[in-house]
Amino acid sequence: MIKIAIIGVGTVGESVVKILQENRDIITARAGKEIVPVVGVVRSLEKKRDVDIELTSSVEDVLKRDDIDMVIELMGGVEEPYKVVRSALESGKSVVTANKALLAYHRYELQDIAGDIPFEYEASVAGGIPIITALRDGLSANHIESIQGIMNGTSNFILTKMINEGEDFNKVLKEAQDLGYAEADPTFDVGGFDAGHKLLILASIAYGIDAKPEDILIEGITEISADDIEFANEFGYSIKLLGIAKRVGDEVELRVHPTLVPNSDMIAKVDGVMNGVSVIGDRVGETLYYGAGAGGDATASAVVANIIDIVRHDKKAPMLGFKKPLENGELKLKSRDDIKTRYYIRVEVEDRAGVLAELSKILGDSGISIEAMLQKNIDENSANLLLSTHKTTEKSIVEAINKIETLSSVKKRPYMIRIEK
Amino acid sequence: MIKIAIIGVGTVGESVVKILQENRDIITARAGKEIVPVVGVVRSLEKKRDVDIELTSSVEDVLKRDDIDMVIELMGGVEEPYKVVRSALESGKSVVTANKALLAYHRYELQDIAGDIPFEYEASVAGGIPIITALRDGLSANHIESIQGIMNGTSNFILTKMINEGEDFNKVLKEAQDLGYAEADPTFDVGGFDAGHKLLILASIAYGIDAKPEDILIEGITEISADDIEFANEFGYSIKLLGIAKRVGDEVELRVHPTLVPNSDMIAKVDGVMNGVSVIGDRVGETLYYGAGAGGDATASAVVANIIDIVRHDKKAPMLGFKKPLENGELKLKSRDDIKTRYYIRVEVEDRAGVLAELSKILGDSGISIEAMLQKNIDENSANLLLSTHKTTEKSIVEAINKIETLSSVKKRPYMIRIEK
Repeated sequence: MIKIAIIGVGTVGESVVKILQENRDIITARAGKEIVPVVGVVRSLEKKRDVDIELTSSVEDVLKRDDIDMVIELMGGVEEPYKVVRSALESGKSVVTANKALLAYHRYELQDIAGDIPFEYEASVAGGIPIITALRDGLSANHIESIQGIMNGTSNFILTKMINEGEDFNKVLKEAQDLGYAEADPTFDVGGFDAGHKLLILASIAYGIDAKPEDILIEGITEISADDIEFANEFGYSIKLLGIAKRVGDEVELRVHPTLVPNSDMIAKVDGVMNGVSVIGDRVGETLYYGAGAGGDATASAVVANIIDIVRHDKKAPMLGFKKPLENGELKLKSRDDIKTRYYIRVEVEDRAGVLAELSKILGDSGISIEAMLQKNIDENSANLLLSTHKTTEKSIVEAINKIETLSSVKKRPYMIRIEK
Repeated sequence: MIKIAIIGVGTVGESVVKILQENRDIITARAGKEIVPVVGVVRSLEKKRDVDIELTSSVEDVLKRDDIDMVIELMGGVEEPYKVVRSALESGKSVVTANKALLAYHRYELQDIAGDIPFEYEASVAGGIPIITALRDGLSANHIESIQGIMNGTSNFILTKMINEGEDFNKVLKEAQDLGYAEADPTFDVGGFDAGHKLLILASIAYGIDAKPEDILIEGITEISADDIEFANEFGYSIKLLGIAKRVGDEVELRVHPTLVPNSDMIAKVDGVMNGVSVIGDRVGETLYYGAGAGGDATASAVVANIIDIVRHDKKAPMLGFKKPLENGELKLKSRDDIKTRYYIRVEVEDRAGVLAELSKILGDSGISIEAMLQKNIDENSANLLLSTHKTTEKSIVEAINKIETLSSVKKRPYMIRIEK
């Protein structure tokens, strides 16, 4: 019998306990041993919890117990769970966590401390979708060329509603908050930070690259307007908040930003609160994984899959999906400046002759060529120019936008969305 | 160092050898040991092969070699590969196969013979998509409620072209044959048998159910007409050849047939030669897996993933994703008669008063109610009645169709497609 402690008994923790108890038959059969949740650690013993296990408020007591084989960390935060996970691993207990922020900052250190002690975290990316299992086991024959993921359900819900209803960001955000799909302070989700944490975890598995959230390009969806949506609809695109990891030579691009994707792409069809991750391997081509990225039961499904996996096998392959380091050494993080893609730009201008010529000249001088353009009048005196470009570098586009912003006919800083195909 | 023999060096076999050689760096790192393809068995040594390994035409010699650790069976057929796999397992060699027909008939026997010897077959279902890994590992916390899969690329290519171009089956089949997407004798693909084999493999993993292809409902796509497509388009459906496994109480439904699926379902968006499998678990909800279902490199990607997996772990969980049998005993195969779903029916009738009344009466008598109807005139005297029903049983619909067929106003046996939502 394997005994489990749950540190943090919120929505996910309650679901973990219930799955272990209610699906005991298949879990025992699949793991080969009975797995029993014996104790939960909570901040306040006053608050009522819907679980049938012993509860305590002392993490220290639980970590000292010799009868506990495995610790499930579901606390939230970074530094406190770091101490708990570290201490559990040091005392030889296996650890499963769903904590993406913890992993975005400390995954390599914790993996190092774990050594041969199982340390798993399938639930940290895309909730119930077994994307880490797919990357580490299912696609192990492949060099991973790229990962593109819709990994934040809140942002995808908002973008889907904006596209379907042609509404502005702020109106839809309010609706999402009323429905409970967005927090009162939605910055972590709509600012792209949550997706950034998840992207770093996938990139470490696929490429073994070590980067922190502050090292990578992260842009949220707060500035997307109804005009941007209209342009996308007109030219057959959807706008999605993508986390992108892409290998180019011996460098890896890591970036999170709103992206125009052709409607014919499978990832464009991932709507509402759902998550989807597209992976391109050098042999298998594209595979895509779709499902619920959040919610207590879906997240707990991935936590319990890790628990079963640890019980089933004696030892686990280490974190990166590699048993020993690659011969050719590590991949480098690509500089943001050198990232090459196509761009969509929205520029609010005075509606008078010569403006387009000035703008085109700046783009031409930066070696950027225009692919398609729409003009939307705002009032008698002003209009939005909406345009898409052929491929260019991030450096060129930022330079061009900086120059365009200084034109007297341009009313505010142009807004840019990257186009992926 | 792990030494591999490849039995059958066709398109997939060549790809397996190349991946092991060309991606040696990541494979060695991920497996923890070097994996070397040392010998290939071919029927004819005359034919030129694009691989750099020793070739022989004697399976027996290879199976006797003590230096071979693992046998990769890629021969095709059923009885000959059965003998090879059996013999390899009996001599203690691990086996990886991509042979779905072999598994549809002999998987339980072979698993039994294997015992603790690793025996893996990820490539047998949906090519490069790691769907078996997902079912067995990623979703292990869940009771599987249903599996719905587009598992035959040839049929999906044909259906997609019929939908996009409004053309009849035979015309598109010809195009598919010209493009190399369909065999000269396409029966195995378009008749649903290939999908049936794959469905049985997934059902054995999800439910531990033992059934043979001849025990389950298998219908192909050869009778679908342009009118059926038009009805589907009109009411927001796509027509897909689905393999469906569904748990209902202590019974499991297994069936392969053309199916109307709402365009908003993710599975409806799997187009062309691609495969997609949607799995509903009791905790995680729906997850979907998408990718290339065929092709040498994609299939070989899954074969090599199995090889790495076997090398990485000392022992494997047995075939069914269960370490020991379920306490509640085995699930039973549901009788075809009792399967309940919605139906689309196409009836060619004389275009005269009273026909619809006769037809409605028969449906009403069988307890079947109509949901939507379209009439398409064929010529002055005849028309197609296209209609969809609310939920009813397979038994009722077959009874009703048998009665409708006997009406003097009905020109030929009505054609029926099941609707899933």
